[in-house]
Amino acid sequence: MNKPESGLDIALLHHPVVNKAGETIGSAVTNLDLHDLARAAKTYGVGRYYLATPYSDQHELVAQIIGHWQDGHGATYNPARKEALSIIRPAYSLDEIIADVRARRGEAPLLVATSAKKLPGAISCGEVRALLAEERQPVLLLFGTAHGLAPACLSRADRVLEPIRGSSTYNHLSVRSAVAIMLDRLLGSR
Amino acid sequence: MNKPESGLDIALLHHPVVNKAGETIGSAVTNLDLHDLARAAKTYGVGRYYLATPYSDQHELVAQIIGHWQDGHGATYNPARKEALSIIRPAYSLDEIIADVRARRGEAPLLVATSAKKLPGAISCGEVRALLAEERQPVLLLFGTAHGLAPACLSRADRVLEPIRGSSTYNHLSVRSAVAIMLDRLLGSR
Repeated sequence: MNKPESGLDIALLHHPVVNKAGETIGSAVTNLDLHDLARAAKTYGVGRYYLATPYSDQHELVAQIIGHWQDGHGATYNPARKEALSIIRPAYSLDEIIADVRARRGEAPLLVATSAKKLPGAISCGEVRALLAEERQPVLLLFGTAHGLAPACLSRADRVLEPIRGSSTYNHLSVRSAVAIMLDRLLGSR
Repeated sequence: MNKPESGLDIALLHHPVVNKAGETIGSAVTNLDLHDLARAAKTYGVGRYYLATPYSDQHELVAQIIGHWQDGHGATYNPARKEALSIIRPAYSLDEIIADVRARRGEAPLLVATSAKKLPGAISCGEVRALLAEERQPVLLLFGTAHGLAPACLSRADRVLEPIRGSSTYNHLSVRSAVAIMLDRLLGSR
């Protein structure tokens, strides 16, 4: 398998997510989340990496970072980074992202949420991998920053993915690690 | 499988590594490399996460970061982070790391280097997974920062792991993503 683009898009949401106390908040954008997720997404043939925040100052920050690598010194210094960051699409809301997927792919995506907790009815990576292989419907995989997607977002999802389990009871991966592992499980060469 | 500790240790080397031009250099420690790799290592039951740099100012930086999360405000704010960072062992050289593994585990580890390039004789993650399952010899997995491990380090390794392949020809994962994916392939629940 060496297709340039899969039926998968990913979205990293900075709102609505929860904090340590379980309250719904908006989180700040992190520079390395842009780079690491874009590089992993590009490696695995993800179509678009949507980055959602409702805050306009955060959009300015994202535009500055991407601009540096797309048009600034970074573009000539590191063309591979330019290529990775080119798949990032900043958005203000999940609705805006869904509309863009529909416009690009011709139909609304299956919304698959991720969570570090095992939620009722969660499906396995193998099941989503099979869905992607069938190519019947695009899939939009949702990741939350801070302590994860808020209930308001989880309840909108069509499916929830089982959490990643390692080989210990410790379960506190960074979102950067979680995205990399999920993409490998869903799209990696076998 | 839910064992507290596997036969695997990992080492992130900041020297000798290569820069973009292929010259051997020493790189700077990155805060998020400490956190992300420690969290992933703890999740997958890795014994120790060795972090090697020959520079004493970098050791001071590492000690400050770890100290904040082990004994400072971070320890009470986020006990899970304290638990993850507790497996980090700063070291000055690969020799020091090998000596520590030998002291802890009673024998020298099999040195398995990683590379983003496919090198002659590289073995698969499945083969290393099988070696770990046999529990005959401890394994030390070596990762390089910057543009990867220098030839002087690769030539010391007993084995080299095949690079991670996604589903595209793009092959520029961050070391944080690469470590997460490797650990999942070597130790993740199947």
